[in-house]
Amino acid sequence: MARVVQKFGGTSVGDIERIRRVAERAARAHRAGDEVAVVVSAMGGETDRLLGLARQLTDAPHHREIDTLLASGEQVSIALVSLALQELGVPARSFLGGSAGVRTDGRHGVARIDAIDPEAVRAALGDGEVAVVAGFQGLGPDGAITTLGRGGSDLSAVAMAAALQADACEIYTDVDGIYTTDPRITDQARRIPRIGFEEMLELASLGAKVLQTRSVELAMKYGVRLHVRSTFLDDEGSWVVPDEEIDMEGAVVTGVAYDRKTAKLSITGVPRGPGQLARLLAPLGEHGVNVDVIIQSDAPAESVDVNFTVSDTELGRAIELLRALPAPFDQCTIQSDPRVAKVSVVGAGMRSQAGVALKVFELLGQAGIPIHLVSTSEIKISCVIDDRFTELAVRLLHDGFELGDPPAV
Amino acid sequence: MARVVQKFGGTSVGDIERIRRVAERAARAHRAGDEVAVVVSAMGGETDRLLGLARQLTDAPHHREIDTLLASGEQVSIALVSLALQELGVPARSFLGGSAGVRTDGRHGVARIDAIDPEAVRAALGDGEVAVVAGFQGLGPDGAITTLGRGGSDLSAVAMAAALQADACEIYTDVDGIYTTDPRITDQARRIPRIGFEEMLELASLGAKVLQTRSVELAMKYGVRLHVRSTFLDDEGSWVVPDEEIDMEGAVVTGVAYDRKTAKLSITGVPRGPGQLARLLAPLGEHGVNVDVIIQSDAPAESVDVNFTVSDTELGRAIELLRALPAPFDQCTIQSDPRVAKVSVVGAGMRSQAGVALKVFELLGQAGIPIHLVSTSEIKISCVIDDRFTELAVRLLHDGFELGDPPAV
Repeated sequence: MARVVQKFGGTSVGDIERIRRVAERAARAHRAGDEVAVVVSAMGGETDRLLGLARQLTDAPHHREIDTLLASGEQVSIALVSLALQELGVPARSFLGGSAGVRTDGRHGVARIDAIDPEAVRAALGDGEVAVVAGFQGLGPDGAITTLGRGGSDLSAVAMAAALQADACEIYTDVDGIYTTDPRITDQARRIPRIGFEEMLELASLGAKVLQTRSVELAMKYGVRLHVRSTFLDDEGSWVVPDEEIDMEGAVVTGVAYDRKTAKLSITGVPRGPGQLARLLAPLGEHGVNVDVIIQSDAPAESVDVNFTVSDTELGRAIELLRALPAPFDQCTIQSDPRVAKVSVVGAGMRSQAGVALKVFELLGQAGIPIHLVSTSEIKISCVIDDRFTELAVRLLHDGFELGDPPAV
Repeated sequence: MARVVQKFGGTSVGDIERIRRVAERAARAHRAGDEVAVVVSAMGGETDRLLGLARQLTDAPHHREIDTLLASGEQVSIALVSLALQELGVPARSFLGGSAGVRTDGRHGVARIDAIDPEAVRAALGDGEVAVVAGFQGLGPDGAITTLGRGGSDLSAVAMAAALQADACEIYTDVDGIYTTDPRITDQARRIPRIGFEEMLELASLGAKVLQTRSVELAMKYGVRLHVRSTFLDDEGSWVVPDEEIDMEGAVVTGVAYDRKTAKLSITGVPRGPGQLARLLAPLGEHGVNVDVIIQSDAPAESVDVNFTVSDTELGRAIELLRALPAPFDQCTIQSDPRVAKVSVVGAGMRSQAGVALKVFELLGQAGIPIHLVSTSEIKISCVIDDRFTELAVRLLHDGFELGDPPAV
């Protein structure tokens, strides 16, 4: 007997037929003897419908009322899923975020979960009921409904799994798992059966459609084993597990990620000296511009060159902020290039294996792809290259590290 | 400055344009310096849409889940009305039934309000906000959402007005008040400016579309002054007020009601003796068959005749139950007539005026309408007549007691 949390997104409960299938899946686990808590989103399209109504009334809606409005969506879903389960002869009980004990920090529209008191849900499970919990919502300190923002239902599911000390949190979605790279770029991409939390975080761009970074971080913090799988297939999906469970002797590289929404900034003539780099970049951080891959030249000169990347949507703002810098930075030259991409090779196995970076440089170099910037972590090597080489680089790295399926005989 | 509760039904919040008008009305009162609590139903058609979804899943839905499902409807309404008010520059705050302090007995689908703790709503009013409260719903003792059944939003409004000690509870609807009789029967029907609670209860059939009996009873119990008025017009409607405020020197008769859904039962040969009538009728009451106008013949004989009316939908069941009676009632003859109607003349002024019954009999007699049964209360005279005479009788009584508008000069 296991205790599982099953999370179904808006597409999975998009119509009555799908709701019935969701109920059947929960019923199957329940009949197999598992304790099952189901976390659901609003029916697909419902959130947009409700926001559309609000927009007809006002251009500047108060977040508090929008939260109350949107939370009605999951309320409908939990009732319908419960009814579908009861129709299958499975005892079921619906829980709003608040009645499931989800307490948030009260920030409307972007709330964070402060705590979950799972007693009511646990009692239902103990009574042999399937608990059907509204995702995406909880109560703030003042008792008002708050929603968790994008990906909120995943967060609800992971937090509920942590609070219930569940054996697994199953994330049902319209893809059947996490892939070694984007299948749109190479048909060699294959499903990863098991991946560590840290690897998953580094591969965020590959799983972004499926798992928000916040959810993976929460799962990692509480050691909640995630199982990303298809709503429509019975096959195993991808397990996301504590990093220490990943076989270090296995593949060195787990996946190849990429990010095309990146832009490069080059600042030349930055005065050498302690604290100058911090002074240069501080205004960006203060204004919410995230700075990625940072490289400082180390030539023996009075001034140095600083290169870094930002999201391409933030490039204009970054240039503005840099141009506004006081002396001595007003003497710097600023150059920018929005046509770059970041390609990353990720693998927990790198910790115990040298030579991965070298192999990356070789693979790209042999194909004549210039590398502008490089950054490395214990389990990741990222290269900033010209955007036009993105697909080629991903395919070369994916093949070079033998991530594809073995060719058919 | 007054404190008012304004209740708007599903039609009044049926689309965005109407929601805007509801907000404008509340805003007007707010700007005039009133403290305003608005109680709203689900948007018209929404409850049916949600029930339709549930019916696709199951023929025997659990009431608990249906309550959770339906309560989402008012949740949407309160958010939208609050947004509309805020767009008008009026501070507003939405309250679910539970957060407005509405506590019920927990019976799903047919809950009764046990108590209202209005502190949160009162605080919002004190802060100068319009409180927008979800009608039709409250929390049961176990914290589960419960709905109040048909007319529930009216009940919520009246109970909230009582808890807030509001100066008035305005019931906005698609008619502009309570009429002296059904305008479909005579164009002489006119709006009643003021009516007492007891009169209103006796005239239930006239106001049934507007005010459920339960709401009037609750208003009477707590002395909540009701103002039934049109959502779409600014005119005064009908005030329903404590009976002692009704001018006894005014019109003797307030209105003429009728009920066509009635059937007559005549039992002959009922043994005379104490307790026999109770023994005859007890099984009906035990099986939920409501017995109205009861007449027992008083001729000096060993057996008596008993006549009474039941709702025509319950006639078959009543006959069945009467036929199953043990000796000595098995010797009785049972006759039934579903083609009867009950016409009632109602007026608080009857308490101090004799001769009203006589006038009713004269008016009907002159027209050749036979009266089968008569029952009277302090403020009502009801006659059971052949159904085909209903319209004629209503018009005769309405004219005879001069309830219509004075003819134009």
